[in-house]
Amino acid sequence: MAEDEIEVEERAKRLAMVCWSSDLDRVWPTLILATTGAASGLEVDVFFTFWGLRVLQRNDKRVTGTNWMQKAESLVDRGGTDHLKLGKIHFGGAGTMMIKKLAKQYKVATPTELLEMALSVGVRMHPCQMTMDLYGLKQEDFVEGLQPTLGAASFIDMAAKADITLFI
Amino acid sequence: MAEDEIEVEERAKRLAMVCWSSDLDRVWPTLILATTGAASGLEVDVFFTFWGLRVLQRNDKRVTGTNWMQKAESLVDRGGTDHLKLGKIHFGGAGTMMIKKLAKQYKVATPTELLEMALSVGVRMHPCQMTMDLYGLKQEDFVEGLQPTLGAASFIDMAAKADITLFI
Amino acid sequence: MAEDEIEVEERAKRLAMVCWSSDLDRVWPTLILATTGAASGLEVDVFFTFWGLRVLQRNDKRVTGTNWMQKAESLVDRGGTDHLKLGKIHFGGAGTMMIKKLAKQYKVATPTELLEMALSVGVRMHPCQMTMDLYGLKQEDFVEGLQPTLGAASFIDMAAKADITLFI
Repeated sequence: MAEDEIEVEERAKRLAMVCWSSDLDRVWPTLILATTGAASGLEVDVFFTFWGLRVLQRNDKRVTGTNWMQKAESLVDRGGTDHLKLGKIHFGGAGTMMIKKLAKQYKVATPTELLEMALSVGVRMHPCQMTMDLYGLKQEDFVEGLQPTLGAASFIDMAAKADITLFI
Repeated sequence: MAEDEIEVEERAKRLAMVCWSSDLDRVWPTLILATTGAASGLEVDVFFTFWGLRVLQRNDKRVTGTNWMQKAESLVDRGGTDHLKLGKIHFGGAGTMMIKKLAKQYKVATPTELLEMALSVGVRMHPCQMTMDLYGLKQEDFVEGLQPTLGAASFIDMAAKADITLFI
Repeated sequence: MAEDEIEVEERAKRLAMVCWSSDLDRVWPTLILATTGAASGLEVDVFFTFWGLRVLQRNDKRVTGTNWMQKAESLVDRGGTDHLKLGKIHFGGAGTMMIKKLAKQYKVATPTELLEMALSVGVRMHPCQMTMDLYGLKQEDFVEGLQPTLGAASFIDMAAKADITLFI
């Protein structure tokens, strides 16, 4: 029994999240929870899928994809942590600017800073293979330091072992 | 101890999800996770509530409900997996068509196919009783193969036993 | 072994939720799950963050914050459970009124009633400190009966001990 207990105590807690959205107001809590979790000693996995995959795109990439539909989608849904916008429209679009200004004033890290911090504290970021195909995104369109691409079955394996599971 | 361990190993992992939305981009991951989960050997329960209840509606049902408010709601929020639309407006409404086209090209199953697959691999789908009352929906408005209707307390019981819990 | 089993049986199950949104259609399920969970004997913690923090605002508070950006935000995003609106626009804004009418007809408790019930059955409600700073909200802007403010790290601690974790 004693050995068992030690094992239980020693296993790090795990947090598995789906980053489904590229809205600023959803990506922000995702990256805050990921960074804080890893800094608190949890093992953290984030699965970037659907709109969320765009979060991992390099900020200097503009048009991506190979066919015209993929290229059109990449134009209206610009990727990269510098270009995220609020999901809610406030003040005719000025809301994103205002929230960023407030965040700066209160020293809340930007999504770009948080993504770097997350990677540096060991958060494992997994791009969704199916979404990559749909968007026509390639490995070189992404920031560095990511894990290999995954499918839904692999994410389910991770999540089944996790203590906290969140879809954001 | 040995017996206990075997029991732990043998119990299937469980996935409990709330399908709260009828947006195409949320229903799609819900059904992909449900189907993949069940195919990987997990027991999967999905609780369809609020807007999400419409997902279970038969595709050939148009106007539902008994009072005028319910009928009006059913007109603007058409149910059935064939009629789901993206939550985000892209290209003046053409986004839904484009995503479906891309999905077809890359052989991603449609929501209608996924719903059938999910039922055939044993995913348990539970309509929310309270939402049925609000919408004035009846048993015959739904696809076949569903579980009996549930309330929030029963969903909580399920989720408390699950290894993965997601609100989508 | 017998002692261990008793301990396992006796520990109450736990539900930890993030209330991230102030949309009526998201706050409603959050409060229904919280109240039902606590009534079923679970320990329930809800972390109110981002837009969700506004849910805890007193209904009679109108303009909040200290700088002009915070004041402007409080004008377009009115807080308090009496003023929540649907995330989806239906019928040119009439949808919120219709859903509330239907809910009344079918005796579904209002968010204001549910918040009171949740507090009375012991749901622990935690305002997010970072969001309070961003919004310029003060303790006296909130309803009574809340827990002390928290940061993300404390929420992660709670969630890691919970049996059900949901981001709504």
